[in-house]
Amino acid sequence: MIQGPSGVFAPVLTLFDATLAPEPARFVGHCRWIVSQGAGLVPFGTTSEANSMSREERIELLERLVAAGIDPALMMPGTGCCALTDSVRLTRHAVGLGCAGVLMLPPFYYKAVGEEGLFRNYAEIIERVGDPRLRLYLYHIPPIAQVGFGVALIERLLRAYPGVIAGIKDSSGDWSNTEAVLAATRGAPFRVFVGTELFLLRNLRAGGAGCITATANINPAAIRKLFERWQSPDAEALQADLDALRRLVQRYPLIPALKRVLAHALRDEQWATVRPPLVELDAGPARELVAALDARGFSMATG
Amino acid sequence: MIQGPSGVFAPVLTLFDATLAPEPARFVGHCRWIVSQGAGLVPFGTTSEANSMSREERIELLERLVAAGIDPALMMPGTGCCALTDSVRLTRHAVGLGCAGVLMLPPFYYKAVGEEGLFRNYAEIIERVGDPRLRLYLYHIPPIAQVGFGVALIERLLRAYPGVIAGIKDSSGDWSNTEAVLAATRGAPFRVFVGTELFLLRNLRAGGAGCITATANINPAAIRKLFERWQSPDAEALQADLDALRRLVQRYPLIPALKRVLAHALRDEQWATVRPPLVELDAGPARELVAALDARGFSMATG
Repeated sequence: MIQGPSGVFAPVLTLFDATLAPEPARFVGHCRWIVSQGAGLVPFGTTSEANSMSREERIELLERLVAAGIDPALMMPGTGCCALTDSVRLTRHAVGLGCAGVLMLPPFYYKAVGEEGLFRNYAEIIERVGDPRLRLYLYHIPPIAQVGFGVALIERLLRAYPGVIAGIKDSSGDWSNTEAVLAATRGAPFRVFVGTELFLLRNLRAGGAGCITATANINPAAIRKLFERWQSPDAEALQADLDALRRLVQRYPLIPALKRVLAHALRDEQWATVRPPLVELDAGPARELVAALDARGFSMATG
Repeated sequence: MIQGPSGVFAPVLTLFDATLAPEPARFVGHCRWIVSQGAGLVPFGTTSEANSMSREERIELLERLVAAGIDPALMMPGTGCCALTDSVRLTRHAVGLGCAGVLMLPPFYYKAVGEEGLFRNYAEIIERVGDPRLRLYLYHIPPIAQVGFGVALIERLLRAYPGVIAGIKDSSGDWSNTEAVLAATRGAPFRVFVGTELFLLRNLRAGGAGCITATANINPAAIRKLFERWQSPDAEALQADLDALRRLVQRYPLIPALKRVLAHALRDEQWATVRPPLVELDAGPARELVAALDARGFSMATG
């Protein structure tokens, strides 16, 4: 039995107010709703526009979440920055708050960096944090970060820091890569999450831990249901339903689209706001998306 | 006559001590030497490993530079971060210190962002800084940042913020791109710097302002000489000499190679240290590089 986080996690959307500042109260409300639907929280993922926020803004939001009484054992905040000194500070803070783990991007400014440099980055962070409670999940998202993790690097990190290197989120969008990672880490206490629910059933059948997916901001209960029923006869049908909704939403730029859905469902236009360099959906596509979801009978059972 | 910074600038190498912390004293010494050779300073460029440092580390180093009595009118620090709140803080700080300008990367985490999102990023930063002294140079380096500036975006920014949008560093490595930018901005008070001295003569002949180049960390006087003598009969020969040295050094990963040259010239091994995810040159290539420079009679006239 795999110990530690498994299941469905939402990289939580961040609410920005009219001055583009993070707005903690409604952010906490959204997180509370996600948890009530059976999913865990990844504050400060790609979907959260984490890299568009300063370290202080992230620290403040995480503290507000924990202060609001949401269990940090359900949280795996993103803490990977370009500067290792920043990654260390965010990671220490998250571990200190009792978070289940951290999801850590590689430093993503320099391209074509090698295994040695990435290994040193993680080694340096782990040793500086120096806390046996640290559980570090590697965040592999080559379409955006460009820099990513080959199997050799994963194996080297696991050998050097067993128990600390706890798993990976594979957002390559390439199932064959996930299969290779699963094969290389079989038997190790290493949890493989896919970065989209499109691969959830395949991942669970292959021994993976679950998914960390943007769509869990709007559809957590249905994704959770598949996680719980993946061995039941209706699993394929549940997967097909998830796929249909996902494919509909990801016709649009995903982050603005999800924020548009949330603004519509919560009747709170402020949710549609994104920070530059992202831009919100134009009125036409926004109407089209909402109409398509209505036509499917989609609703967010707001808690 | 173009007003404002022109000439040769070095994106200054950053010295890290044995704990990988920036070491201000010798960093200031290196900057002082560059200035003595006739070049200006871009602290916190790509070559400086700026994105591998926290905001606080960059603020501290810049203050040390200015406190050491180096004229901020010779400085154009890099201040562009993924989070606009970070870019605002670094930019305000640099403007407050009296720096000639700032060189600002676009937010580089999200890829495939459009002109509108990048425009909003810069507009938001300019308005928040709200200081008429701000002179903003766009940092176009698509091979690394991936996100860059098309001519339409440059024109739009110039129209919206004339006098503030002051120029560009074009590190595309593509002379035809530089030509297109020069053509689009001819007549405007907009200074076009190339990102390598390989294009210096061509840029000056085409009306450009100079270059901001990594190699100016080791070869500033010779690059400056071409800048001063570009209309003289020996200009082609001076360019050819610069090219030969540059081509020799850039056979190797450029930042570790330049740090190796500095460590050798200053007899200070600490200069060879890089922060992860970069790695220093291996012993073999390091020896080969130094031997090749010796064979050319290269020396740094340390001031």
